[in-house]
Amino acid sequence: MSPDIDRSSPIPLHYQLKQILLGKIEQNEWQTGDMFPTEQELQNSYQLSRTTVRQTLLDLTAEGWLVRQRGRGTFVTRPKFTHSPEEHYGLTDQLLRQGITPGWKIVAQEWAQPAIEIRAALRLAPEEPAYTICRLRLAGEEPIGYHSAYLPEAIAALIDHRALSEGESLRYLKQLPQMYNSRAQRTIEAVAASEIETTWLGMEPGAPVLLIERLITTEDGTPLEFLQAHYRGDRFRYQIP
Amino acid sequence: MSPDIDRSSPIPLHYQLKQILLGKIEQNEWQTGDMFPTEQELQNSYQLSRTTVRQTLLDLTAEGWLVRQRGRGTFVTRPKFTHSPEEHYGLTDQLLRQGITPGWKIVAQEWAQPAIEIRAALRLAPEEPAYTICRLRLAGEEPIGYHSAYLPEAIAALIDHRALSEGESLRYLKQLPQMYNSRAQRTIEAVAASEIETTWLGMEPGAPVLLIERLITTEDGTPLEFLQAHYRGDRFRYQIP
Repeated sequence: MSPDIDRSSPIPLHYQLKQILLGKIEQNEWQTGDMFPTEQELQNSYQLSRTTVRQTLLDLTAEGWLVRQRGRGTFVTRPKFTHSPEEHYGLTDQLLRQGITPGWKIVAQEWAQPAIEIRAALRLAPEEPAYTICRLRLAGEEPIGYHSAYLPEAIAALIDHRALSEGESLRYLKQLPQMYNSRAQRTIEAVAASEIETTWLGMEPGAPVLLIERLITTEDGTPLEFLQAHYRGDRFRYQIP
Repeated sequence: MSPDIDRSSPIPLHYQLKQILLGKIEQNEWQTGDMFPTEQELQNSYQLSRTTVRQTLLDLTAEGWLVRQRGRGTFVTRPKFTHSPEEHYGLTDQLLRQGITPGWKIVAQEWAQPAIEIRAALRLAPEEPAYTICRLRLAGEEPIGYHSAYLPEAIAALIDHRALSEGESLRYLKQLPQMYNSRAQRTIEAVAASEIETTWLGMEPGAPVLLIERLITTEDGTPLEFLQAHYRGDRFRYQIP
């Protein structure tokens, strides 16, 4: 019998087991990708019933610490960061609530001729440049996303540069009167990691990337910003609503 | 000068050029992945101004027929099917509007023990099976998605089996009183193609897949259906709103 389970405690056994196993995951006794013990092994190690062990595995899986692969077994993983744009708090607040320091690292700020689909979305005239801001999104020390934002000249002149290193992705536009009743249209795609993601997010070429494109327009449809946000597929997911 | 451009026509030159080039794409003169002629080449071939050629390329790119890769050139692609769940019409209607016949191919219908995270979402008791419906989503002859739907026993008894081969993904539940004021929660992720996608969607192992998980619950939170929808990353994107 394991000394860690206290059978005289009022804390449910499945919750005690969960805390013990989470502690071991957090202390890297098992690392991401390692096979997790089977139900039977956990029953034997902790002298607990099948029902108790199952409840623990169910909770750890639902919270994103374990993933079961049919016919292969159960593996340790880490919960993906989840962004739910309809909630009142954004990814930045969600990281803070998890005790993770959110951050931005500015990679580039320049006038550039964006790709033709971005020109179309921003309704740029021929040869008209866009102000381009490339930033790494950090969760603690970990780069999880790469944002390329494109702004028409009239908007670029008004942005709050101090806000580029802090807060939500749109913080630097928030104070503009044009943002009142603005609209966002997003598309979400799965694409293969290219140079941006291998260089900045440490991904293998071809690995799955979640690409979110977002066009912000004023109430009457004038484009304010076009964003391409690239996130590691293995570290990020998007929730609606 | 190309005979295809009619300079006496009231139809704008950039639109004439677009129709000519689209015709060639549709007749497979260029296939997906082929490099497209440069602006200069098109100017020379059709004796058109740079502004006209650019407008045509802008339109073809915005509509998803061309993709520009920085430093490499412009390549032919096909527009991704776009699903926008907030609009009144779903993917089925969107395909119909594009002249594409939507369809389903039923791959499996069985009672099974789903993975632990699905058990948790459906709040299944230990050993309680779920009714599992696996269907290929077809756009014409092309399989673009693979849906695995899991239903609790009480709901499985009520579904409209005829509707499994037609209409929207939820058509077979639509007539249930439980669906009144039901709620959907979705998460969207980019994952690597595994056996499902290589077998059913003809994908290369590891290629990017857009995975949409959707939990439908009644107004008071009772689970009705859990869905895992796997779509080819190169053929599908998701739009919000």
